[in-house]
Amino acid sequence: MKSFRKELVLTVPTRRAFVNITHEVEHALAESGIQEGLVLVNPMHITASVFINDDERGLHSDYEKWLEKITPHAPAEQYRHNDTGEDNADAHIKRQIMGREVVVAVTRGGWILVPGSKFSMVSSTGEDQSGF
Amino acid sequence: MKSFRKELVLTVPTRRAFVNITHEVEHALAESGIQEGLVLVNPMHITASVFINDDERGLHSDYEKWLEKITPHAPAEQYRHNDTGEDNADAHIKRQIMGREVVVAVTRGGWILVPGSKFSMVSSTGEDQSGF
Amino acid sequence: MKSFRKELVLTVPTRRAFVNITHEVEHALAESGIQEGLVLVNPMHITASVFINDDERGLHSDYEKWLEKITPHAPAEQYRHNDTGEDNADAHIKRQIMGREVVVAVTRGGWILVPGSKFSMVSSTGEDQSGF
Repeated sequence: MKSFRKELVLTVPTRRAFVNITHEVEHALAESGIQEGLVLVNPMHITASVFINDDERGLHSDYEKWLEKITPHAPAEQYRHNDTGEDNADAHIKRQIMGREVVVAVTRGGWILVPGSKFSMVSSTGEDQSGF
Repeated sequence: MKSFRKELVLTVPTRRAFVNITHEVEHALAESGIQEGLVLVNPMHITASVFINDDERGLHSDYEKWLEKITPHAPAEQYRHNDTGEDNADAHIKRQIMGREVVVAVTRGGWILVPGSKFSMVSSTGEDQSGF
Repeated sequence: MKSFRKELVLTVPTRRAFVNITHEVEHALAESGIQEGLVLVNPMHITASVFINDDERGLHSDYEKWLEKITPHAPAEQYRHNDTGEDNADAHIKRQIMGREVVVAVTRGGWILVPGSKFSMVSSTGEDQSGF
């Protein structure tokens, strides 16, 4: 069995950001030379999510507003995790909602995804994030 | 490494529907002849989810009511994604909650799932959906 | 292709509990002797979730409180699934939020996860749970 692993390093300017990593994932797949198998794409951080959906600015804004509505960042004191001195309990919860990873089938060196399917990563902490 | 890919085409009569695809997935596994490995089952659309849970009518009704409560379809104007002319922003969010795919281990040509574990697909748009 | 499957049996004393299974998963990986590939960790029950996040008591308390807020257990009568005589409709919904499984890449016999990444299982029913 052939395997290939690549780590991406992303720096995002804001505490939360949606980054389209489709091009990087496709490039890594081509680099691997793998024709048949499974691709796993996951963040290396526990407050980030990799997901497949539409890379549309309005939708990302909707995700952000909705996540904040059901899991508000403030007040920080509402979360026991923040008693540790951190203030990202909400980001750990948001990661569970958005999911951690995606697994995609590769056939004949490519994947078949409908138009509009993009790999995105959402980071909730502003820390460097890497995956794949 | 042996691999096998099969696409299912489903037509659902309503905008949102839960479809039990367990039989189709089992049939595809048998067809593949694969004895050991991983099965990935995912929808080809970005407003649909494949998940494993109880195929019980009451539970599906609970999912539907709960999803609608935390992410209402109407009014469409509350979502910026719908400014694009679409009206399915809520379906993109619901897909993130329910998840995209499932990965299941295959041992000796079958999987070991407790009774009640069924592969279901929920579609939120009424479009044709395919997977596996 | 080499494959290895191991079932863990856990008994939790309370209806809902977070259990850190990282040690067991690492032990199983070592036992497998697998150097390159994918590890799938999933619960065998449909009201339980395996996830990767911080194993921090405060965070688990936050998850529990938040899950209960958006999907309250009581009153049982609000869920049609409970008309079957069960009272765990909320646990089936919570499982969808927290996810079912995790897939992790193995390279040179180990995985690279940032500090703080722990495999946890949350059970919502108090039944025996097994996975991996």
